Amino acid sequence: MVVIPTASQLDDTGDNYCALFMDLGAASAVSLPIDERSDAQREDYLQSIEDATGIFITGGNQLRLSTILGGTPVARLIRRRNAAGVCVAGTSAGAAIMPEHMIAGGAPGALPTAGDVTLAPGLGLIKKAILDQHFSERNRLGRLLTAVSFNPYAVAFGIDEDTAVFIDHNNELEVVGSGTVTVVDPGELQYSSMAEAGHGEALTLIGLRLHMLSNGDYYNINTRVATASHGRQSRIID
Amino acid sequence: MVVIPTASQLDDTGDNYCALFMDLGAASAVSLPIDERSDAQREDYLQSIEDATGIFITGGNQLRLSTILGGTPVARLIRRRNAAGVCVAGTSAGAAIMPEHMIAGGAPGALPTAGDVTLAPGLGLIKKAILDQHFSERNRLGRLLTAVSFNPYAVAFGIDEDTAVFIDHNNELEVVGSGTVTVVDPGELQYSSMAEAGHGEALTLIGLRLHMLSNGDYYNINTRVATASHGRQSRIID
Repeated sequence: MVVIPTASQLDDTGDNYCALFMDLGAASAVSLPIDERSDAQREDYLQSIEDATGIFITGGNQLRLSTILGGTPVARLIRRRNAAGVCVAGTSAGAAIMPEHMIAGGAPGALPTAGDVTLAPGLGLIKKAILDQHFSERNRLGRLLTAVSFNPYAVAFGIDEDTAVFIDHNNELEVVGSGTVTVVDPGELQYSSMAEAGHGEALTLIGLRLHMLSNGDYYNINTRVATASHGRQSRIID
Repeated sequence: MVVIPTASQLDDTGDNYCALFMDLGAASAVSLPIDERSDAQREDYLQSIEDATGIFITGGNQLRLSTILGGTPVARLIRRRNAAGVCVAGTSAGAAIMPEHMIAGGAPGALPTAGDVTLAPGLGLIKKAILDQHFSERNRLGRLLTAVSFNPYAVAFGIDEDTAVFIDHNNELEVVGSGTVTVVDPGELQYSSMAEAGHGEALTLIGLRLHMLSNGDYYNINTRVATASHGRQSRIID
């Protein structure tokens, strides 16, 4: 297990997660304290990632992840290992960085508003998806809607606290946890006023699809089909 | 102009609105202080409503409106006059009471949760629609989603402050104001977990349609089609 604590500015974050993974039964766990871009080229760190069977990216500030890791050998190696089947997990900022397009920041609130979200390139492990976290707890629907209003090609996922999504190699996503995952699918969007909206103006968005998913529910990012755990169980029983 | 201040428990609400309507150019404005069910049978009040060309219901507590007016001659007369073309307007509780099914109360929050909304019969002026108010300001998406999860036959509208919807005799709704109207259309809902959910449990809802409408946008409750003001303008120009 390799832990990348770059997003956090606390000195013990990496070691705390290593202890946690050892408690959970990992054979080994090592933290790579990548604090500047030159660290992300260290041969010993690259070797650790090459040897890992799991990679975990901690929470903190996702702009530290993108500014320090972006374009480095470590970032390229994480993508390559993930493509080869190694599980890459993250919490909070560590989840936000996963997609091609990352929510770098934004204002809280329920309404989509021009200028209330900042997008930046992420690690690129997930295509056609945008992730947000602490979602209902921090009232982030507005910034998620604004994110899809720019270019409705990606599905947006708002993940609550104490809630995880597992995305497999078929781009199928499973919800696990006590909270809800809010899915906004703009695939059939008929109109977005983003191109004409002035800064701070409320947006018009017509034709979004909305799903509220909870523990055991599934969503396929490729087909854009949601399946309730109940429905899935009854299909299996049938 | 007739003002019904029943929802408010302040003595001067009715008179304040009458002064406001006179300032706005009304030929006459009278407040009907209906404070108990017997008041809602008074012949002089019924005559005022019969003579009015506009009826305004103030804000306050919508359960005062439903418990005091429900089933009375005043309620029946308001419905009859509205059906004959008289404009009936309301703010806050006065808007909530308009539909067949009224949101009587509920907890704030972004997530639909079993038990977090209370529905009650309303005045019945609007069919197949549920209205909520102070919507984004009081974080009421969760209770609106819960309301449609019971029985997805009605479209739900969350109306922000400083924002109005005008509903004409064709069931076409126009948004006017500085805020947003959040439209949740469950017409194509594939799954609601409400029937199985325990009290306080987060709901799974699959297949909702979501529109965010702002000033000048339209929504037709019969056809369930939303039209942006921009799109409408260009259609007219074309």
